[in-house]
Amino acid sequence: MTELGVTSVEIHLPSGFSFSSVSAGIKVSGRPDLALVECCAGTTAAAVFTKNRVVAAPVVIGREALRKSRGKIRAVVVNSGNANCATGPQGLHACHAVCRETARILGTRTDKVFPSSTGIIGVPLPTGKILAQVPDLIAQRQGTPEAARKFAETIMTTDTHPKVASAVLQIRHHEVRLLGIAKGSGMIHPQLATMLVYLFTDVAATARELKQLLAPVCDETFNCISVDGDTSTNDTVLLLASGESGVDLKDRRATRLLRAALLEICQSLAEQIVRDGEGVRHVIRLSIEGARTRNDARQIARAIAHSPLVKTAWAGADPNWGRILAAVGRSGVPVNPEGISIFIGEQRVCHRGQAFAFNEKAAHQHLSLPTCEVRVQLGPGGTPLRFLTTDLTSEYVRINADYST
Amino acid sequence: MTELGVTSVEIHLPSGFSFSSVSAGIKVSGRPDLALVECCAGTTAAAVFTKNRVVAAPVVIGREALRKSRGKIRAVVVNSGNANCATGPQGLHACHAVCRETARILGTRTDKVFPSSTGIIGVPLPTGKILAQVPDLIAQRQGTPEAARKFAETIMTTDTHPKVASAVLQIRHHEVRLLGIAKGSGMIHPQLATMLVYLFTDVAATARELKQLLAPVCDETFNCISVDGDTSTNDTVLLLASGESGVDLKDRRATRLLRAALLEICQSLAEQIVRDGEGVRHVIRLSIEGARTRNDARQIARAIAHSPLVKTAWAGADPNWGRILAAVGRSGVPVNPEGISIFIGEQRVCHRGQAFAFNEKAAHQHLSLPTCEVRVQLGPGGTPLRFLTTDLTSEYVRINADYST
Repeated sequence: MTELGVTSVEIHLPSGFSFSSVSAGIKVSGRPDLALVECCAGTTAAAVFTKNRVVAAPVVIGREALRKSRGKIRAVVVNSGNANCATGPQGLHACHAVCRETARILGTRTDKVFPSSTGIIGVPLPTGKILAQVPDLIAQRQGTPEAARKFAETIMTTDTHPKVASAVLQIRHHEVRLLGIAKGSGMIHPQLATMLVYLFTDVAATARELKQLLAPVCDETFNCISVDGDTSTNDTVLLLASGESGVDLKDRRATRLLRAALLEICQSLAEQIVRDGEGVRHVIRLSIEGARTRNDARQIARAIAHSPLVKTAWAGADPNWGRILAAVGRSGVPVNPEGISIFIGEQRVCHRGQAFAFNEKAAHQHLSLPTCEVRVQLGPGGTPLRFLTTDLTSEYVRINADYST
Repeated sequence: MTELGVTSVEIHLPSGFSFSSVSAGIKVSGRPDLALVECCAGTTAAAVFTKNRVVAAPVVIGREALRKSRGKIRAVVVNSGNANCATGPQGLHACHAVCRETARILGTRTDKVFPSSTGIIGVPLPTGKILAQVPDLIAQRQGTPEAARKFAETIMTTDTHPKVASAVLQIRHHEVRLLGIAKGSGMIHPQLATMLVYLFTDVAATARELKQLLAPVCDETFNCISVDGDTSTNDTVLLLASGESGVDLKDRRATRLLRAALLEICQSLAEQIVRDGEGVRHVIRLSIEGARTRNDARQIARAIAHSPLVKTAWAGADPNWGRILAAVGRSGVPVNPEGISIFIGEQRVCHRGQAFAFNEKAAHQHLSLPTCEVRVQLGPGGTPLRFLTTDLTSEYVRINADYST
């Protein structure tokens, strides 16, 4: 538990949301694969989507729903086991049919139902199977922490465990609750994809206020992680605010507190996603200091985080700073090589672009920890950019190369 | 042997060049690690260097040599086993000392000696060991194919075999010869780096004419390959023309023939480098068609070639077109997803952004071949861009994660 009280164990359920899960037979395993959130009247929403030019049908329809409803959402319907991507006009029809049926039974408008899909690419969505389960799905909804946890399990694909983070804030004698639920472990399983993140709060906010909160938080968290550098076609982060707590964002202190808590929750979910990357043995907390801009820092972090040479060295707990230096050099950001220092854990291993005598054994030991710190100093000053990434192991290759016709 | 007579077996040695190799004790193995080319008076030169911002000392000095000498080079001195990179001002001094000693014994100017280094990063160049061997190195030089082949072996680091390609052209009753020698297998060994390519011809040309020949050829060959996406700090391609054949580039037919032969030789060397990438089981000939520009096509090819998901699928001979489609989508190039078709071998596997019924077994069999064809059609028309890349195997990870303190 952090100082803001963010926890990934307990679920503090914000008022105004109920959850439900069923098995629709989309997953071959027969595990639950269809999930619902019902939101109370007046719930506002904002979302951030994948930047991939190839997007799945639910991303198209979800974006449209937020626009048409002006950010008023009454339900979220998610299936796992099928991404409904590269499925053409039929994919859009299928997604629309699921939203329409959900809206009909809930007695709301279709464009107030927000859809998500995650799973295999290029296979038609089994619409019949899903539609048959929608009545049961809706009937079973419950506003309980258990139902929310079940939701987190239902949206999993290759995840090895559900990902939640939660907090309670005291604002003006009111309790404001925040709950984040995510799935994803990089886009790393055969034909399976996607990071989905749902953030729930009972604060009262306009869709515009939510968007202003969400975009910068995503930039600092979900846009600062990388397992394998691949961006899914379905990535979605959705923030929903029910207004049930009686606290609104006209209050600047409330906004500040909520932003800090949201950042912590997203950081926690981001780290849970990275740690669950398949084949991952080491999570690396990269810190880039002294870059001219945040974008420069992020570009350098990505060049390091996407270098197979750097990632395989990490897999071997090899304090090979030459590969990190070379990755910074080819990042495309104009840097002064003679200004670059590199630290592994507490130790300096490269000083101003040159070798520096260091304790190799200690550096090797630090890199053998489950979570390691690697710091790249480009020059003096500036707020460091934090970036989470992983090693690249034989296990990753084994999982992703595994194929049988 | 191709229609232009390019061969990677025989060596057609252009007149005006002699070669030499010795062991200076830089490589722990004791194998030859110091090599020389002496060029006859009047030899002109042009080079293309790494775009990495972090560059090794020999790249700095080599660039300077070409500028100061106005592209007149009398010798090339190469060491393997040490990259002389991240070695600070001492590294520049060391490189300069080697060039000066070579120039002194050959009786030429220091800035007519072009240096290269390849090997470990961040370790001081053992200048004493090298200087002690320079007299022997120069004394033993010979203008024979055997000496040239020995040169190709001496510059190897993690390469498993030397890389040469050669051709003879008949131009106006004269014989013009072309010889290419390369080393490199991606930047994929612990702390070892670098692709080095030396191209020799006995045509007569100005340094400017050579530069105009070399740059576009590099763009189509060495800039269209990727083993692991890492750019070395030492990459160098040097083209040398002795003028001894009596044919010059005032003749447009001669220029056209030479360009075609140079392109073939560089393509052969590029493919030899990719095929020798460590852990590589499959070489993939990627073809990108219908891009707006060559740069767009190259950016898309790189996004595919650098995707760990795509590369691990190839390792498993998995015809997973969804990963290729997703990589195109996140390449940053504005593409129309509904226009994208993908072919594996002769078979269409994705039609206009959607799944397409195909024979999975046949596609799997094609991807099991040592060399596979993957074609991405963005839309109609345009010259396809050819890009060579490889799969990503557990063997690659094992080699690069292997570390012992």
